[in-house]
Amino acid sequence: MKNPIRTVSIIGAGNVAFHLARAFVQNTVQVKQIYNRTLHKAERIGEANKINYTDKISELEPADLFVIAASDSAITELSLHIPFDDTMVVHTSGSIPMSALKGNYRKGVLYPLQTFTKGKFLDYDDIPFFVEAESPENAEQLKDLAKRITNQVQIIDSDQRAKLHLAAVWACNFVNHMYSMGEEITKDAGLSFDYLKPLIKETAEKLEDLSPFEAQTGPAKRNDQIVIEKHLELMENSAARDLYRIISDSITQTHNNEL
Amino acid sequence: MKNPIRTVSIIGAGNVAFHLARAFVQNTVQVKQIYNRTLHKAERIGEANKINYTDKISELEPADLFVIAASDSAITELSLHIPFDDTMVVHTSGSIPMSALKGNYRKGVLYPLQTFTKGKFLDYDDIPFFVEAESPENAEQLKDLAKRITNQVQIIDSDQRAKLHLAAVWACNFVNHMYSMGEEITKDAGLSFDYLKPLIKETAEKLEDLSPFEAQTGPAKRNDQIVIEKHLELMENSAARDLYRIISDSITQTHNNEL
Repeated sequence: MKNPIRTVSIIGAGNVAFHLARAFVQNTVQVKQIYNRTLHKAERIGEANKINYTDKISELEPADLFVIAASDSAITELSLHIPFDDTMVVHTSGSIPMSALKGNYRKGVLYPLQTFTKGKFLDYDDIPFFVEAESPENAEQLKDLAKRITNQVQIIDSDQRAKLHLAAVWACNFVNHMYSMGEEITKDAGLSFDYLKPLIKETAEKLEDLSPFEAQTGPAKRNDQIVIEKHLELMENSAARDLYRIISDSITQTHNNEL
Repeated sequence: MKNPIRTVSIIGAGNVAFHLARAFVQNTVQVKQIYNRTLHKAERIGEANKINYTDKISELEPADLFVIAASDSAITELSLHIPFDDTMVVHTSGSIPMSALKGNYRKGVLYPLQTFTKGKFLDYDDIPFFVEAESPENAEQLKDLAKRITNQVQIIDSDQRAKLHLAAVWACNFVNHMYSMGEEITKDAGLSFDYLKPLIKETAEKLEDLSPFEAQTGPAKRNDQIVIEKHLELMENSAARDLYRIISDSITQTHNNEL
């Protein structure tokens, strides 16, 4: 491979920046600098990983790659301030197209598909990374870099990435909201949410053997209106009741269309 | 403890019966018989666990406990046919009250809170069991029996159990439907559902450290209408779009009420 990426600097100091910095350093990728406009956040990541940090764009030094790991709304603004042209700049967002980067440098995306929690360490080699670039050569450079962190790297375009991000909202954010509803109901019954945890674990682990379609169980799949009506009566909060009804209808329809 | 339950017979041969039989036998509880009106299903469980099996109610022998592990709609009918009075009879359903058992025997419930898959073995000692009975003494007898299988046994009443079952529908059945929606979208993008699995695993594992309320992330929690609108446009299926919108609204409201 000609022109491998040897040096990386990170723009931003949120959760993704925290974990990417750690993942790079653990895998001996040289991280030159962390930039963040609030110095103490850059400092936190810099000190933890022995990386130089700054809150001044003018202090950025040349690097082979700048990774903008910032909120969606900050990406374009930050991309305008990278003070070099002969470099590559990527963002890490699932929902923002590569074209949101505005500059004369080479552009790309490095999207890790995972939910990152502050301070909770992860096995980065399990996390799928999705890369996009303006040329096949640049995509290969990014892919080689990501392969130093993880076993799963895939080149996809901005449209595919947007769909993947949407799928992740269902499989992570919406799933977590279902957990929340379960927690509310157990609390209301005077019971600990902990009782649900083995069930939650097994529901996720079932996917090792079965597709979600095959794994579906419960009253809505059986179209068991007796249980469904009982459950609707148990929910005092009418918003929860509406949600229960529409999700149950969706399950019933999914499984009856296929019969 | 006086009068411990020494012998158990199982009525029914579905998933719960399969797993309960196995859990009892593994923990040296004597299972005398499996009854099912379709003989080959009783045979499958009987042969696998070295338990006698029958398809004739008249062949049932006395036992300290009969466990009706059958579909909700079959429980009352089966309960009428237990040919003994000096015994205890329980069902295993989350959503059916103890009073659905009709007979002159002592009545109870033994509810294992887990999703059981045919042929997939589980660590039974992790599964919470919930018991109910007509007297404290009978409840203690059931509790002692369940403790031979699992570390987590709790005495609760029929109302609490109904709520727990409702919570389980959210945390398991509805969660699995969210996985299904994610699978549909990844397939539509030409990508493997496998890419979502590390995310799904981590979303469940986060609950070891955080409550679901604390663990919530994503566009709806941030009330990020730009991403939400993009996602709504990506979904061709209007039923999926409606579901996305109502779940997102629920997340946004939950997290804005608390701010």
